[in-house]
Amino acid sequence: MTQTDVTALIALLRGMDASVATAESLTGGLVCSALVAVPGASDVVRGGIIAYTADAKIDLLGVPPDLISRYGTVDQRVAASMANAARRRFGSTYGLATTGVAGPDSSEDKPVGTVHVAIAGPEGTNSCALWLTGDRDTIRNSTVDELLSLFVDRVREESRS
Amino acid sequence: MTQTDVTALIALLRGMDASVATAESLTGGLVCSALVAVPGASDVVRGGIIAYTADAKIDLLGVPPDLISRYGTVDQRVAASMANAARRRFGSTYGLATTGVAGPDSSEDKPVGTVHVAIAGPEGTNSCALWLTGDRDTIRNSTVDELLSLFVDRVREESRS
Repeated sequence: MTQTDVTALIALLRGMDASVATAESLTGGLVCSALVAVPGASDVVRGGIIAYTADAKIDLLGVPPDLISRYGTVDQRVAASMANAARRRFGSTYGLATTGVAGPDSSEDKPVGTVHVAIAGPEGTNSCALWLTGDRDTIRNSTVDELLSLFVDRVREESRS
Repeated sequence: MTQTDVTALIALLRGMDASVATAESLTGGLVCSALVAVPGASDVVRGGIIAYTADAKIDLLGVPPDLISRYGTVDQRVAASMANAARRRFGSTYGLATTGVAGPDSSEDKPVGTVHVAIAGPEGTNSCALWLTGDRDTIRNSTVDELLSLFVDRVREESRS
Protein backbone atom coordinates (compact mmCIF):
# COMPACT_ATOMS: atom_id res chain seq x y z
CA MET A 1 0.00 0.00 0.00
CA THR A 2 1.89 3.05 -1.24
CA GLN A 3 1.08 6.60 -0.18
CA THR A 4 -0.42 7.02 -3.68
CA ASP A 5 -2.82 4.15 -2.92
CA VAL A 6 -3.77 5.73 0.40
CA THR A 7 -4.28 9.08 -1.33
CA ALA A 8 -6.64 7.38 -3.81
CA LEU A 9 -8.50 5.71 -0.94
CA ILE A 10 -8.97 9.03 0.89
CA ALA A 11 -10.17 10.66 -2.37
CA LEU A 12 -12.62 7.80 -2.94
CA LEU A 13 -14.02 8.15 0.59
CA ARG A 14 -14.26 11.93 0.19
CA GLY A 15 -16.18 11.48 -3.07
CA MET A 16 -18.68 9.23 -1.27
CA ASP A 17 -18.91 11.71 1.62
CA ALA A 18 -17.81 8.81 3.82
CA SER A 19 -15.65 8.83 6.96
CA VAL A 20 -13.52 6.30 8.80
CA ALA A 21 -12.30 5.57 12.35
CA THR A 22 -10.02 2.87 13.73
CA ALA A 23 -9.73 0.51 16.70
CA GLU A 24 -6.21 -0.89 16.86
CA SER A 25 -4.42 -3.37 19.02
CA LEU A 26 -1.15 -4.83 17.68
CA THR A 27 -0.70 -2.02 15.12
CA GLY A 28 -0.81 0.53 17.96
CA GLY A 29 -1.88 3.48 15.79
CA LEU A 30 -0.15 2.59 12.51
CA VAL A 31 -3.42 2.18 10.57
CA CYS A 32 -4.69 5.60 11.55
CA SER A 33 -1.30 7.25 11.01
CA ALA A 34 -1.08 5.71 7.52
CA LEU A 35 -4.46 7.28 6.72
CA VAL A 36 -3.64 10.74 8.11
CA ALA A 37 -0.29 10.79 6.30
CA VAL A 38 -2.27 12.02 3.30
CA PRO A 39 -2.90 15.80 3.09
CA GLY A 40 -6.60 16.54 3.47
CA ALA A 41 -7.23 13.33 5.42
CA SER A 42 -9.00 15.38 8.08
CA ASP A 43 -12.07 15.56 5.80
CA VAL A 44 -12.41 11.81 6.07
CA VAL A 45 -10.54 10.42 9.12
CA ARG A 46 -12.36 10.89 12.42
CA GLY A 47 -9.78 9.28 14.70
CA GLY A 48 -9.21 6.01 16.48
CA ILE A 49 -8.84 4.13 19.71
CA ILE A 50 -5.70 2.17 20.42
CA ALA A 51 -6.75 -0.58 22.80
CA TYR A 52 -3.55 -2.36 23.59
CA THR A 53 -4.79 -4.23 26.66
CA ALA A 54 -7.81 -6.48 27.21
CA ASP A 55 -9.14 -3.94 29.75
CA ALA A 56 -8.96 -1.12 27.19
CA LYS A 57 -10.83 -3.29 24.67
CA ILE A 58 -13.59 -3.81 27.24
CA ASP A 59 -13.70 -0.33 28.83
CA LEU A 60 -13.10 1.90 25.82
CA LEU A 61 -14.47 -0.21 22.97
CA GLY A 62 -17.20 -2.14 24.78
CA VAL A 63 -15.96 -5.55 23.63
CA PRO A 64 -18.01 -8.05 25.70
CA PRO A 65 -15.77 -9.48 28.47
CA ASP A 66 -17.17 -12.98 27.95
CA LEU A 67 -16.07 -12.87 24.30
CA ILE A 68 -12.51 -12.21 25.48
CA SER A 69 -12.63 -14.78 28.29
CA ARG A 70 -13.95 -17.39 25.88
CA TYR A 71 -11.82 -16.74 22.79
CA GLY A 72 -9.00 -14.43 23.92
CA THR A 73 -8.32 -10.99 22.42
CA VAL A 74 -6.81 -12.37 19.19
CA ASP A 75 -10.04 -13.54 17.62
CA GLN A 76 -12.20 -12.74 14.60
CA ARG A 77 -15.25 -11.93 16.77
CA VAL A 78 -13.21 -9.56 18.92
CA ALA A 79 -11.89 -7.84 15.77
CA ALA A 80 -15.45 -7.45 14.45
CA SER A 81 -16.62 -6.06 17.79
CA MET A 82 -13.73 -3.56 17.78
CA ALA A 83 -14.53 -2.40 14.20
CA ASN A 84 -18.19 -1.91 15.14
CA ALA A 85 -17.12 0.06 18.21
CA ALA A 86 -14.83 2.36 16.19
CA ARG A 87 -17.70 3.13 13.83
CA ARG A 88 -20.14 3.70 16.70
CA ARG A 89 -17.83 5.73 18.95
CA PHE A 90 -16.77 8.13 16.21
CA GLY A 91 -20.04 8.11 14.25
CA SER A 92 -18.09 7.25 11.10
CA THR A 93 -19.24 5.45 7.95
CA TYR A 94 -16.56 2.79 8.33
CA GLY A 95 -14.69 1.26 11.25
CA LEU A 96 -11.39 -0.63 10.88
CA ALA A 97 -9.88 -2.92 13.51
CA THR A 98 -6.74 -4.97 14.15
CA THR A 99 -5.88 -7.52 16.82
CA GLY A 100 -3.07 -10.06 16.74
CA VAL A 101 0.25 -11.38 17.96
CA ALA A 102 3.18 -9.21 16.79
CA GLY A 103 5.73 -11.19 18.75
CA PRO A 104 8.45 -11.87 19.67
CA ASP A 105 6.51 -14.15 22.04
CA SER A 106 3.33 -16.03 21.25
CA SER A 107 0.23 -15.08 23.20
CA GLU A 108 -2.98 -16.86 24.24
CA ASP A 109 -1.53 -20.05 22.69
CA LYS A 110 -1.64 -18.34 19.30
CA PRO A 111 1.56 -18.26 17.28
CA VAL A 112 3.37 -15.05 16.36
CA GLY A 113 1.85 -13.63 13.17
CA THR A 114 -1.75 -14.63 13.95
CA VAL A 115 -3.77 -11.51 13.13
CA HIS A 116 -7.44 -10.67 12.70
CA VAL A 117 -8.56 -7.54 10.87
CA ALA A 118 -12.14 -6.33 10.52
CA ILE A 119 -14.10 -3.74 8.58
CA ALA A 120 -17.50 -2.42 9.70
CA GLY A 121 -19.64 -0.35 7.36
CA PRO A 122 -23.17 0.41 6.20
CA GLU A 123 -23.43 -3.00 4.53
CA GLY A 124 -22.23 -4.98 7.55
CA THR A 125 -19.05 -6.16 9.23
CA ASN A 126 -16.46 -8.63 8.04
CA SER A 127 -13.41 -10.07 9.69
CA CYS A 128 -10.41 -11.78 8.09
CA ALA A 129 -7.76 -13.96 9.65
CA LEU A 130 -4.17 -13.51 8.51
CA TRP A 131 -1.13 -15.63 9.28
CA LEU A 132 1.85 -13.39 8.71
CA THR A 133 5.58 -14.07 8.86
CA GLY A 134 8.53 -11.91 9.79
CA ASP A 135 9.64 -9.87 12.76
CA ARG A 136 7.50 -7.60 14.91
CA ASP A 137 7.79 -4.58 12.59
CA THR A 138 7.10 -6.63 9.47
CA ILE A 139 4.02 -8.21 11.01
CA ARG A 140 2.61 -4.83 12.08
CA ASN A 141 3.30 -3.22 8.70
CA SER A 142 1.89 -6.19 6.79
CA THR A 143 -1.25 -5.97 8.93
CA VAL A 144 -1.72 -2.32 7.93
CA ASP A 145 -1.16 -3.17 4.24
CA GLU A 146 -3.56 -6.11 4.26
CA LEU A 147 -6.29 -4.23 6.11
CA LEU A 148 -6.08 -1.16 3.88
CA SER A 149 -6.07 -3.32 0.73
CA LEU A 150 -9.22 -5.10 1.92
CA PHE A 151 -10.73 -1.74 2.80
CA VAL A 152 -10.00 -0.28 -0.66
CA ASP A 153 -11.73 -3.28 -2.27
CA ARG A 154 -14.72 -2.95 0.03
CA VAL A 155 -15.08 0.82 -0.50
CA ARG A 156 -14.74 0.44 -4.30
CA GLU A 157 -17.46 -2.19 -4.28
CA GLU A 158 -19.80 -0.15 -2.12
CA SER A 159 -19.17 3.00 -4.17
CA ARG A 160 -20.51 1.18 -7.23
CA SER A 161 -23.62 -0.21 -5.53
CA MET B 1 14.68 9.15 19.08
CA THR B 2 16.07 5.82 17.94
CA GLN B 3 14.43 2.48 18.67
CA THR B 4 17.23 1.95 21.21
CA ASP B 5 16.12 5.12 23.01
CA VAL B 6 12.52 3.95 23.02
CA THR B 7 13.63 0.54 24.31
CA ALA B 8 15.46 2.28 27.18
CA LEU B 9 12.36 4.40 27.90
CA ILE B 10 10.12 1.32 28.06
CA ALA B 11 12.64 -0.43 30.35
CA LEU B 12 12.78 2.65 32.60
CA LEU B 13 8.97 2.75 32.87
CA ARG B 14 8.82 -0.99 33.52
CA GLY B 15 11.41 -0.61 36.31
CA MET B 16 9.19 2.06 37.93
CA ASP B 17 6.10 -0.12 37.47
CA ALA B 18 4.69 2.81 35.49
CA SER B 19 2.38 2.81 32.48
CA VAL B 20 1.56 5.22 29.66
CA ALA B 21 -1.34 6.09 27.36
CA THR B 22 -1.64 8.62 24.53
CA ALA B 23 -4.10 11.16 23.14
CA GLU B 24 -3.04 12.16 19.65
CA SER B 25 -4.25 14.59 17.07
CA LEU B 26 -1.82 15.55 14.28
CA THR B 27 0.40 12.51 14.87
CA GLY B 28 -2.61 10.24 14.32
CA GLY B 29 -1.21 7.26 16.24
CA LEU B 30 2.52 7.66 15.56
CA VAL B 31 3.40 8.28 19.21
CA CYS B 32 1.70 5.11 20.39
CA SER B 33 3.04 3.06 17.49
CA ALA B 34 6.60 4.27 18.25
CA LEU B 35 6.15 3.02 21.82
CA VAL B 36 4.68 -0.36 20.91
CA ALA B 37 7.40 -0.97 18.30
CA VAL B 38 9.50 -2.22 21.21
CA PRO B 39 9.07 -5.89 22.18
CA GLY B 40 7.51 -6.16 25.63
CA ALA B 41 5.85 -2.75 25.36
CA SER B 42 2.56 -4.35 26.37
CA ASP B 43 3.76 -4.38 30.00
CA VAL B 44 3.84 -0.59 29.92
CA VAL B 45 1.69 0.81 27.09
CA ARG B 46 -2.02 0.82 27.84
CA GLY B 47 -3.23 2.32 24.54
CA GLY B 48 -4.37 5.65 23.17
CA ILE B 49 -7.10 7.73 21.67
CA ILE B 50 -6.60 9.37 18.30
CA ALA B 51 -8.86 12.40 18.33
CA TYR B 52 -8.42 13.87 14.90
CA THR B 53 -11.50 16.13 14.96
CA ALA B 54 -12.68 18.73 17.47
CA ASP B 55 -15.77 16.58 18.15
CA ALA B 56 -13.62 13.57 19.01
CA LYS B 57 -11.55 15.71 21.38
CA ILE B 58 -14.75 16.76 23.16
CA ASP B 59 -16.68 13.46 23.04
CA LEU B 60 -13.91 10.93 23.60
CA LEU B 61 -11.39 12.93 25.62
CA GLY B 62 -13.70 15.30 27.47
CA VAL B 63 -11.85 18.45 26.38
CA PRO B 64 -14.14 21.33 27.46
CA PRO B 65 -15.93 22.71 24.36
CA ASP B 66 -15.45 26.30 25.56
CA LEU B 67 -11.69 25.76 25.65
CA ILE B 68 -11.79 24.81 21.97
CA SER B 69 -14.20 27.58 20.99
CA ARG B 70 -12.01 30.13 22.76
CA TYR B 71 -8.53 28.98 21.78
CA GLY B 72 -9.02 26.47 18.96
CA THR B 73 -7.77 22.88 19.07
CA VAL B 74 -4.10 23.78 18.53
CA ASP B 75 -3.46 25.17 21.98
CA GLN B 76 -1.34 24.38 25.03
CA ARG B 77 -4.40 24.13 27.32
CA VAL B 78 -6.10 21.72 24.91
CA ALA B 79 -2.91 19.60 24.78
CA ALA B 80 -2.79 19.51 28.60
CA SER B 81 -6.46 18.54 28.79
CA MET B 82 -5.85 15.73 26.26
CA ALA B 83 -2.86 14.39 28.23
CA ASN B 84 -4.90 14.41 31.45
CA ALA B 85 -7.71 12.59 29.63
CA ALA B 86 -5.37 9.88 28.29
CA ARG B 87 -4.11 9.25 31.81
CA ARG B 88 -7.61 9.20 33.26
CA ARG B 89 -9.28 7.11 30.54
CA PHE B 90 -6.63 4.39 30.59
CA GLY B 91 -5.77 4.62 34.30
CA SER B 92 -2.10 4.99 33.38
CA THR B 93 0.74 6.64 35.29
CA TYR B 94 1.50 8.99 32.41
CA GLY B 95 -0.54 10.54 29.59
CA LEU B 96 1.02 11.98 26.43
CA ALA B 97 -0.74 14.32 23.98
CA THR B 98 -0.17 16.03 20.65
CA THR B 99 -2.15 18.68 18.79
CA GLY B 100 -0.92 20.86 15.94
CA VAL B 101 -0.93 21.89 12.31
CA ALA B 102 0.81 19.32 10.09
CA GLY B 103 -0.07 21.14 6.89
CA PRO B 104 -0.01 21.57 3.99
CA ASP B 105 -2.61 24.25 4.88
CA SER B 106 -2.59 26.41 7.98
CA SER B 107 -5.48 25.99 10.40
CA GLU B 108 -7.22 28.22 12.96
CA ASP B 109 -4.95 31.07 11.78
CA LYS B 110 -1.99 29.11 13.10
CA PRO B 111 0.91 28.51 10.71
CA VAL B 112 1.95 25.03 9.55
CA GLY B 113 4.35 23.53 12.11
CA THR B 114 2.63 25.00 15.20
CA VAL B 115 2.45 22.09 17.61
CA HIS B 116 1.65 21.62 21.30
CA VAL B 117 2.69 18.50 23.18
CA ALA B 118 1.79 17.69 26.78
CA ILE B 119 2.75 15.19 29.46
CA ALA B 120 0.52 14.38 32.44
CA GLY B 121 1.83 12.39 35.37
CA PRO B 122 1.79 11.95 39.13
CA GLU B 123 3.69 15.21 39.60
CA GLY B 124 1.42 17.30 37.36
CA THR B 125 0.92 18.21 33.73
CA ASN B 126 3.11 20.27 31.45
CA SER B 127 2.63 21.47 27.91
CA CYS B 128 5.25 22.69 25.44
CA ALA B 129 4.82 24.68 22.26
CA LEU B 130 6.93 23.70 19.24
CA TRP B 131 7.36 25.53 15.96
CA LEU B 132 8.53 22.93 13.51
CA THR B 133 9.60 23.18 9.89
CA GLY B 134 9.36 20.78 6.98
CA ASP B 135 6.65 18.88 5.16
CA ARG B 136 3.72 17.06 6.71
CA ASP B 137 5.65 13.85 7.41
CA THR B 138 8.63 15.69 8.86
CA ILE B 139 6.43 17.74 11.18
CA ARG B 140 4.61 14.66 12.45
CA ASN B 141 7.82 12.69 12.99
CA SER B 142 9.54 15.65 14.67
CA THR B 143 6.54 15.95 17.00
CA VAL B 144 6.93 12.31 18.05
CA ASP B 145 10.69 12.79 18.60
CA GLU B 146 10.29 15.98 20.63
CA LEU B 147 7.51 14.59 22.80
CA LEU B 148 9.32 11.32 23.54
CA SER B 149 12.56 13.22 24.34
CA LEU B 150 10.68 15.44 26.79
CA PHE B 151 9.02 12.34 28.22
CA VAL B 152 12.34 10.54 28.75
CA ASP B 153 13.69 13.57 30.64
CA ARG B 154 10.57 13.77 32.77
CA VAL B 155 10.54 10.05 33.59
CA ARG B 156 14.27 10.05 34.42
CA GLU B 157 13.73 12.98 36.76
CA GLU B 158 10.74 11.40 38.48
CA SER B 159 12.51 8.03 38.78
CA ARG B 160 15.20 9.74 40.88
CA SER B 161 12.79 11.61 43.17
